[in-house]
Amino acid sequence: MPSEPRFTFGLWTVGNPGRDPFGDPTRAPLDPADSVRKLAELGAWGVSLHDNDLIPWGSSADEEERIVARFETALQETGLGVGMATTNLFGHPAFKDGAFTSNDRGVRRAAIGKAMRAIDLGGRLDAEVFVFWGGREGTEVGTAKDPRDALERYREAINVLSDYVVEHGYDLPFALEPKPNEPRGDIFLPTVGHALHFISTLDRPERVGVNPEVAHETMAGLSFAHGVGQALWAGKLFHIDLNSQRIGRYDQDFRFGAEDLKELFLLVRLLERAGYGGPRHFDAHSYRGEDAEGVWDFARGCMRTYLALAERARAFDELPEVKAALDAASTPELAQPSTNGAGEADALKAEAAADRLDALAVRGYGNEALDQLVVEVLLGVRGR
Amino acid sequence: MPSEPRFTFGLWTVGNPGRDPFGDPTRAPLDPADSVRKLAELGAWGVSLHDNDLIPWGSSADEEERIVARFETALQETGLGVGMATTNLFGHPAFKDGAFTSNDRGVRRAAIGKAMRAIDLGGRLDAEVFVFWGGREGTEVGTAKDPRDALERYREAINVLSDYVVEHGYDLPFALEPKPNEPRGDIFLPTVGHALHFISTLDRPERVGVNPEVAHETMAGLSFAHGVGQALWAGKLFHIDLNSQRIGRYDQDFRFGAEDLKELFLLVRLLERAGYGGPRHFDAHSYRGEDAEGVWDFARGCMRTYLALAERARAFDELPEVKAALDAASTPELAQPSTNGAGEADALKAEAAADRLDALAVRGYGNEALDQLVVEVLLGVRGR
Amino acid sequence: MPSEPRFTFGLWTVGNPGRDPFGDPTRAPLDPADSVRKLAELGAWGVSLHDNDLIPWGSSADEEERIVARFETALQETGLGVGMATTNLFGHPAFKDGAFTSNDRGVRRAAIGKAMRAIDLGGRLDAEVFVFWGGREGTEVGTAKDPRDALERYREAINVLSDYVVEHGYDLPFALEPKPNEPRGDIFLPTVGHALHFISTLDRPERVGVNPEVAHETMAGLSFAHGVGQALWAGKLFHIDLNSQRIGRYDQDFRFGAEDLKELFLLVRLLERAGYGGPRHFDAHSYRGEDAEGVWDFARGCMRTYLALAERARAFDELPEVKAALDAASTPELAQPSTNGAGEADALKAEAAADRLDALAVRGYGNEALDQLVVEVLLGVRGR
Amino acid sequence: MPSEPRFTFGLWTVGNPGRDPFGDPTRAPLDPADSVRKLAELGAWGVSLHDNDLIPWGSSADEEERIVARFETALQETGLGVGMATTNLFGHPAFKDGAFTSNDRGVRRAAIGKAMRAIDLGGRLDAEVFVFWGGREGTEVGTAKDPRDALERYREAINVLSDYVVEHGYDLPFALEPKPNEPRGDIFLPTVGHALHFISTLDRPERVGVNPEVAHETMAGLSFAHGVGQALWAGKLFHIDLNSQRIGRYDQDFRFGAEDLKELFLLVRLLERAGYGGPRHFDAHSYRGEDAEGVWDFARGCMRTYLALAERARAFDELPEVKAALDAASTPELAQPSTNGAGEADALKAEAAADRLDALAVRGYGNEALDQLVVEVLLGVRGR
Repeated sequence: MPSEPRFTFGLWTVGNPGRDPFGDPTRAPLDPADSVRKLAELGAWGVSLHDNDLIPWGSSADEEERIVARFETALQETGLGVGMATTNLFGHPAFKDGAFTSNDRGVRRAAIGKAMRAIDLGGRLDAEVFVFWGGREGTEVGTAKDPRDALERYREAINVLSDYVVEHGYDLPFALEPKPNEPRGDIFLPTVGHALHFISTLDRPERVGVNPEVAHETMAGLSFAHGVGQALWAGKLFHIDLNSQRIGRYDQDFRFGAEDLKELFLLVRLLERAGYGGPRHFDAHSYRGEDAEGVWDFARGCMRTYLALAERARAFDELPEVKAALDAASTPELAQPSTNGAGEADALKAEAAADRLDALAVRGYGNEALDQLVVEVLLGVRGR
Repeated sequence: MPSEPRFTFGLWTVGNPGRDPFGDPTRAPLDPADSVRKLAELGAWGVSLHDNDLIPWGSSADEEERIVARFETALQETGLGVGMATTNLFGHPAFKDGAFTSNDRGVRRAAIGKAMRAIDLGGRLDAEVFVFWGGREGTEVGTAKDPRDALERYREAINVLSDYVVEHGYDLPFALEPKPNEPRGDIFLPTVGHALHFISTLDRPERVGVNPEVAHETMAGLSFAHGVGQALWAGKLFHIDLNSQRIGRYDQDFRFGAEDLKELFLLVRLLERAGYGGPRHFDAHSYRGEDAEGVWDFARGCMRTYLALAERARAFDELPEVKAALDAASTPELAQPSTNGAGEADALKAEAAADRLDALAVRGYGNEALDQLVVEVLLGVRGR
Repeated sequence: MPSEPRFTFGLWTVGNPGRDPFGDPTRAPLDPADSVRKLAELGAWGVSLHDNDLIPWGSSADEEERIVARFETALQETGLGVGMATTNLFGHPAFKDGAFTSNDRGVRRAAIGKAMRAIDLGGRLDAEVFVFWGGREGTEVGTAKDPRDALERYREAINVLSDYVVEHGYDLPFALEPKPNEPRGDIFLPTVGHALHFISTLDRPERVGVNPEVAHETMAGLSFAHGVGQALWAGKLFHIDLNSQRIGRYDQDFRFGAEDLKELFLLVRLLERAGYGGPRHFDAHSYRGEDAEGVWDFARGCMRTYLALAERARAFDELPEVKAALDAASTPELAQPSTNGAGEADALKAEAAADRLDALAVRGYGNEALDQLVVEVLLGVRGR
Repeated sequence: MPSEPRFTFGLWTVGNPGRDPFGDPTRAPLDPADSVRKLAELGAWGVSLHDNDLIPWGSSADEEERIVARFETALQETGLGVGMATTNLFGHPAFKDGAFTSNDRGVRRAAIGKAMRAIDLGGRLDAEVFVFWGGREGTEVGTAKDPRDALERYREAINVLSDYVVEHGYDLPFALEPKPNEPRGDIFLPTVGHALHFISTLDRPERVGVNPEVAHETMAGLSFAHGVGQALWAGKLFHIDLNSQRIGRYDQDFRFGAEDLKELFLLVRLLERAGYGGPRHFDAHSYRGEDAEGVWDFARGCMRTYLALAERARAFDELPEVKAALDAASTPELAQPSTNGAGEADALKAEAAADRLDALAVRGYGNEALDQLVVEVLLGVRGR
């Protein structure tokens, strides 16, 4: 880790009141400016926000100005930055059939307009990136939307909004946040892969990347480290949402580190080795049974566990037995090109002969030993 | 459906001997030429094959020639075509750490060479498409492979093989077949989305598409119709593997129609409406408890169910009450652009005002009624 | 089906306002008496209710009396019955750590007291059964509750409440409703099997059965027909919750028939063949995008699909080719005892000789043909 | 941990040759006596075995005697014990439709006879427990077996075999091993809960317990610690199978500790606190890419990780801040009865008054702080 990681929290994360599909809120709402101050005290670098986390629905222009100015003051006083801004296109009943992909053209237009307003806000607050989570872009009833039409409308919206950013001179790249399901039965752009492909079809692909979330890829049982790896490989990791989740369940958004420490170790190691420079953004919330103090236990825990995993990753990579195990697994050899340029076809075919394959099958790859080192470093049996 | 669908079966599907991780084979192997004759009798259009389905490992050049010639004779006698050819880069122990992404450079070279040989075979047999299923390209132990290196090697291999096809003048597009896991803990290019994105990074992206498989996307709980929709939208549906699967389980490869009739109805309707012209390829096998006759019950069932679903899809789209329900859901409206061109930003922002959103929230989308029509058409309560 | 099935709906199902974890309500609340009248009009047999579906939190004794009396009038006017009553031990923040298994003894006592009040209400309304859904009985943090302590407290609560019912002379059997997770990370008694076992440990096991729900078992990917089969086999199917769900997702509670028609066909066939006499209870709700009319489309759809599946099940069992396929699969032979009484050990061991096993392995079980008949009956290709 | 845990390995685990559904073996078979000697050298307490791990199918009585005697010699020489014995009722094609629940009565009889022979072997080898894993007891095609008939046959078989054990004076309790699916589409007795209930219906329930396996419960996404907790609560944990698995995937049987360290920490802590005295049995195998040496890396890793987790569990429970956090969560209070005996109904109802509930809702449960302590102990940040 070249320098201290910059930790950010969404206003909606520490502000989560504990409501769920089966129960009422268990905590009082937090004032955004108070959240800023408390997060500063805990050592966070910044915050992120939906438009409506800050500005209640239906606020007048005057109210909005007063609210934003007060928020800016809190940021200035604390020195906190805005890691990302986004727009809530899922909470209001108008978006019940989708936002950019609602079957109702009026809704689609309103969604684009609302995103423009939120971009203005993000620009004003010097947000580093603007995220789109299309939580309502999907179906329960497959016949209701031709997926090709839906993707075409999705593309139109992102293209129009990219133009808007360019025309207004905002330095505000976009990051698309995939999710497979919930709150819709099936959401369009369900994984990092689908979003990366979609970006390649845009008018301004260079301005758009992804915002992968641990919980979202994990819901589908996909390897988060592989998904983030593909985004990094493509130069498209523009932001990241950190939390924890068990596979095949409702969107849990648990404290970073609450589940699957080995997968998170792989993630942190990958981010640090790749020199990812964006904020480490926690999109999670405390358990519903926590009181106000438990919320800050939650926030502290997210950051402490990230730092502990980063430290363990460094310790792992410094161990001589790890270097030996990586060599035994031929891990560095994967970075070498397989071929030597054109004109090799006959040579390559010859190397595929049955006896050559049999000879190549003899060796082992030492992955048990290598993975046991990961476990022992994680448990502090080694490298401590 | 403009014309009769062309049904194909892999040699390995009807030839599956019923071995599984916990049990020995229950059926005798089938001779490929006999499979061709029996499939012709049942009304299939063609077959598909891995190199080693036809040519046993370690055959001499003479044996290979004799085997292929005999197979060509069977094709000519029956009039069957070859829907696709592929190469087995997963069965031999040499590929235990991967093929194109093995950490061992020698294995990677052998894998490319073996694919070249299989491309030669596919070209000779006039296969329509050449499929790559990277079943061993993955990890159980995340530290053993940097995913960025693995993707780079994967890209190199497909680029080299694309060059090979062009240099040799084969009319043989490639189709990548994604799968999330099994036999590896996590497989690279786990979903249709990841594969579509990967294709966009290739030297010759126009020559490469995807081969989605019902079972593979379903293992991860993703909507198959949405995934195929994204591939069609991108012009990248080059082949398709049809079977059935329950979510979150081992790779079942059940008879097409054995699970989730509504999702398969959506799929067949989408394929037929999109005018997909490739083979309807069954990559499935009969239950292990079947005897030789049961294998052909299985094959007949796959085709009968496809035809029945295609008929139900036509009946659905012809019903006046369905047209009305689609209108009530504003389904056709999704095909209309949301915006009217540049210069609309102020208008769009105005349409996002709180009272405008409240007004847009009043209407319903009639999806319960629409989906109930799907169910009733499927169950033959309507449209029969 | 010996007679017309009795359909019931929870007040909370048609009354669901469309709120979800990411969005606000999309529909106005319904008055319980209006729901009763509308359900009667649609042909339902009865309703079910939580205490708080009818009586708002914090109502005075006078208000409660007035509300209940008005509800009784609506029942009398329409002739509708109360299929089941239950108590809401999940919505109030007091139950955030559990109800019968909260770590706080005061909460546990309040939960038992609240259940007693709800039993009084259920008794007054002549409910057929009283259901316990322990939605908050679980953990996110495993160290917070020893599972043995939690089960002991759960048992204590059900024992105390069973005594209460007996002492007060209510004719009100209990039914426990299992669920694997959501809203808790892991819920105690996660499946039908765990609940059946728990019942066997109670003081009055004969008074307690299970209330399996399609969605809940399906979330864990278990066969619902097998789970209901085990409950029927044990004489413990006291109630049933019908809806639809995809595996490995948030609790969807979709319209009965919206997903997995084959599994529901198996379920309906089993219920009808077993002569299950209780209500067919729909615990589901309409999609969030529906308006008031869509809610009734949803309710109609649930009942229509049940009837259609029951008709298909009858048609299936009447087809001569089905009888032949069941015989080919030796299905009736499974009802015969395997052994002939004591003293057979030597004979049985002899039948396990290797050559005898080889001979037994020759036959096939014809399951492909049998299952294809299911598909073709479902799709109306046969038996219509 | 009162004393050293006794570690056992199945002969089939270290002897796994690396075959999988898509690939050929990668390792040579091991001689059982050699496995015994190597495991003794590594510090294992004992082994477990299927009849056919030791005695090849179709061995003559003489061959069998010679093989068993040679194996006994290896046990005597090394001092290793036999933790459990079981019978393979899944590998031979005769069992393709099931064993105790095959539709073919002849197969069912052969299965019972084969189990009797294996019980004789288990008795001779002084096995501590006899396990039944009914891997083939299930369906892909629901109509092929009425689940009630299947459970009745299953019960008959276990009853007959229990009688056999008693008649022959074997000191050999039974343990049923549940699994949700694979190799069958759906397996009967899919979870610990279903098996515990089934046991309660047997003629000799006191002689039968469960053998839960980490991978099997985890495939269905259930909490393993909760499942084991219910078995311990019921006095039915007769054996345990340790390995690792990701949720919603094929049966992985990874090295103990390869996945989900926190869940395994909960498991080990529970086993040690409960004083479980049986063997810690590893039912896992090394990755297919390992050579012969990697197999022993795998075996060493299983034991080392168990010991490390047991040490971490002790360290956790000794930390003063953990004791404080458990108190803050009221964890010890869950062990106290909720009620004070009969005659409390009015008091309990009064405690359920709305204002009392509101007062009970104020407190938090401190689970974030408690779980963060688990994470920090696991990562060695604390208690080391």
